[in-house]
Amino acid sequence: MLRGLGNDARTAAQALATMPTATKAAALRAAAAAIREDAARILAANAQDIAAAEGNGLSGAMLDRLRLDPARVEAMAVGVDAVAGLRDPVGGVIDRSERPNGLALSRVRVPIGVIGIIYESRPNVTADAGALAVMAGNAAILRGGSEAIRSNRAIHAAMARGLASAGLPEGAVQLIPTTDRAAVGDMLRADGMIDLIVPRGGKSLVARVQAEARVPVLAHLDGLNHSYVDRAADPTMAEAVVVNAKLRRTGVCGATETLLIDRGYADPLPILSGLIAAGCELRGDAEVRALHPAILEANDDDWDTEYLDAILSVKLVDGVDDAIAHIAAHGSHHTDAILTEDAATAEHFLARVDSAIVMWNASTQFADGGEFGLGAEIGIATGRLHARGPVALEGLTTYKWIVRGTGQTRP
Amino acid sequence: MLRGLGNDARTAAQALATMPTATKAAALRAAAAAIREDAARILAANAQDIAAAEGNGLSGAMLDRLRLDPARVEAMAVGVDAVAGLRDPVGGVIDRSERPNGLALSRVRVPIGVIGIIYESRPNVTADAGALAVMAGNAAILRGGSEAIRSNRAIHAAMARGLASAGLPEGAVQLIPTTDRAAVGDMLRADGMIDLIVPRGGKSLVARVQAEARVPVLAHLDGLNHSYVDRAADPTMAEAVVVNAKLRRTGVCGATETLLIDRGYADPLPILSGLIAAGCELRGDAEVRALHPAILEANDDDWDTEYLDAILSVKLVDGVDDAIAHIAAHGSHHTDAILTEDAATAEHFLARVDSAIVMWNASTQFADGGEFGLGAEIGIATGRLHARGPVALEGLTTYKWIVRGTGQTRP
Repeated sequence: MLRGLGNDARTAAQALATMPTATKAAALRAAAAAIREDAARILAANAQDIAAAEGNGLSGAMLDRLRLDPARVEAMAVGVDAVAGLRDPVGGVIDRSERPNGLALSRVRVPIGVIGIIYESRPNVTADAGALAVMAGNAAILRGGSEAIRSNRAIHAAMARGLASAGLPEGAVQLIPTTDRAAVGDMLRADGMIDLIVPRGGKSLVARVQAEARVPVLAHLDGLNHSYVDRAADPTMAEAVVVNAKLRRTGVCGATETLLIDRGYADPLPILSGLIAAGCELRGDAEVRALHPAILEANDDDWDTEYLDAILSVKLVDGVDDAIAHIAAHGSHHTDAILTEDAATAEHFLARVDSAIVMWNASTQFADGGEFGLGAEIGIATGRLHARGPVALEGLTTYKWIVRGTGQTRP
Repeated sequence: MLRGLGNDARTAAQALATMPTATKAAALRAAAAAIREDAARILAANAQDIAAAEGNGLSGAMLDRLRLDPARVEAMAVGVDAVAGLRDPVGGVIDRSERPNGLALSRVRVPIGVIGIIYESRPNVTADAGALAVMAGNAAILRGGSEAIRSNRAIHAAMARGLASAGLPEGAVQLIPTTDRAAVGDMLRADGMIDLIVPRGGKSLVARVQAEARVPVLAHLDGLNHSYVDRAADPTMAEAVVVNAKLRRTGVCGATETLLIDRGYADPLPILSGLIAAGCELRGDAEVRALHPAILEANDDDWDTEYLDAILSVKLVDGVDDAIAHIAAHGSHHTDAILTEDAATAEHFLARVDSAIVMWNASTQFADGGEFGLGAEIGIATGRLHARGPVALEGLTTYKWIVRGTGQTRP
């Protein structure tokens, strides 16, 4: 099955690679309109998924991710329309040069080709990821979670109809229509057929992708993020930013999971009290626990745990270098922040912390493609190659070298 | 063993990541000087490798790649000095933006970290690759061919002494000192310890790397390159460029391996005669063989063969789209060229041929980092992600997002 999908995707990718921006944008607007037209059908399919999931005893959080309502369907359509309005990176010139022999060189952005997206329960990824892939000139092969199969099929049917109505090839966005787990393995080994795999999901999915993939992967691992309160931090700012970084939404990958406080910081108590008052459980060692009676004892695992919950591990450190060392030992290279009024200390931290995103005097919750002005995101890459941090259209392209000559031969 | 090397490399990479350009450059100049000082020792080690290789019955071409002489040792030192003079990409700002909430974002180039380089018989790679990795702020773990182990140890000892004399950490450039093949497998599976593997060698090495690697790979596959002579090509230019593209050096990855000639091109005979007169064996189907009696019969494999020799497969096609289709079916996404005086046809080809390098009216033999003005190259990447085509310093870096705020919290 994957071979047929793969061939159709490659054919579609060749057509998409040189398709004008206006054609791609019009196709996405038609897809958004089709999603709106099919809202009732999509919601009915989703109700079946929800009923089956409840029958299978899925947890409340999983059900919430799976569940659609009219507002969520509309948000999906709005999202696809928004992608249609983004700047098309394809054809952009990265740089140019002319050689002494007269050869004119340029590096020009081109699509990656065929992108495989493997995701879990949220059905909106079907629309989001498909739209981003197409706008960047790629064909997409989507493989959603089995619990969302009916929702995904309905969303995909709407999108495919919309895209086809604007003249896009059928292979532009394809959904693997089965729930067979072997299909994931086939995608991960489809070297030469799929050019890039983007996994969007929890640790077990990412672990499987890392273990099995023979295709390049743009991985989004944990956000084990730190906020470090330096001795020179502004106390009012520190309290506000730390509470926001931890508690604005605890389930997002940009949430802070460990708070590092400089032993030279005058009075950590207001920050800790503020967190506790806002409903956060704090965990620390004896030194930290001496600061407030509500702080629980941390064990060794706490420094390596992405809670995704209203829990925060707290540690005292000896200045910025000790904070950097803790982050190097325990961080996940996602997003780490320093709070300080000392610019030299801030720049020291920003240069030395090896994360996709480093922040000075800002909440780690800003780690998001929309907040970064990218208009959308397909994920936040925590690997080191190709793209790091929020990935939107540009991260779904690569480049080629174009050399224009006048008959030059190499001596 | 690899664990110790890996830890030392990580420590060194942390120091190199923020090291001033002048320090890295001075260290490389000291390494070049040490290579010159040790020339006699390096040549003596190489003589032992050559003697052992002759005893093992290595072929003439392999022996030539392995053999050093005073000029080749000097060329190595010159190469390391040249890398010291290249522009340092680390710290370069890719782009900046300011968000409506006042957050100032920038994307800044940073080193990748620890780069593993796996190569075959040419001992000069020890110096070249080590120098490029260090100048881009990375630590290198080198694993050369077992037949070159004595030469590589001697070159590495000189480099390491030079780098250390300038204050670089010991782990900056390390050589795996054994010839144990298991070490290659250890490197390929060293996810988290090695950030990128660069294989430099023949098909069997690359195949092994592709099959086993759990670490991202910047692969350099075959150069199954095409030159296409369009109906609107200038005959004099076409003959000169095609002969150069095939025959200047037949063993390099930028050599043309298949010649496509438009059936609308007036007189292909001078090109074919020119190639034959220059000593090239031509292979084609009956239609092509009818053009010249010396042309041999091509079989199906010829269209997929990288000869790396004075052999060329020749095919007649129906215009530029037929040429593009042949390249899509048989090319290796390395370098493909069109010869034409028709700018619209040329741009059609440049946009649609999906190769790392596409050329108009120039010899494919220009596919080279030096010729592209990069000052050097660690290889020509034929994959689609991170870097394509000639890779030098910039391709050995990645980026981070730096966010500077004034206490912003996310609503």
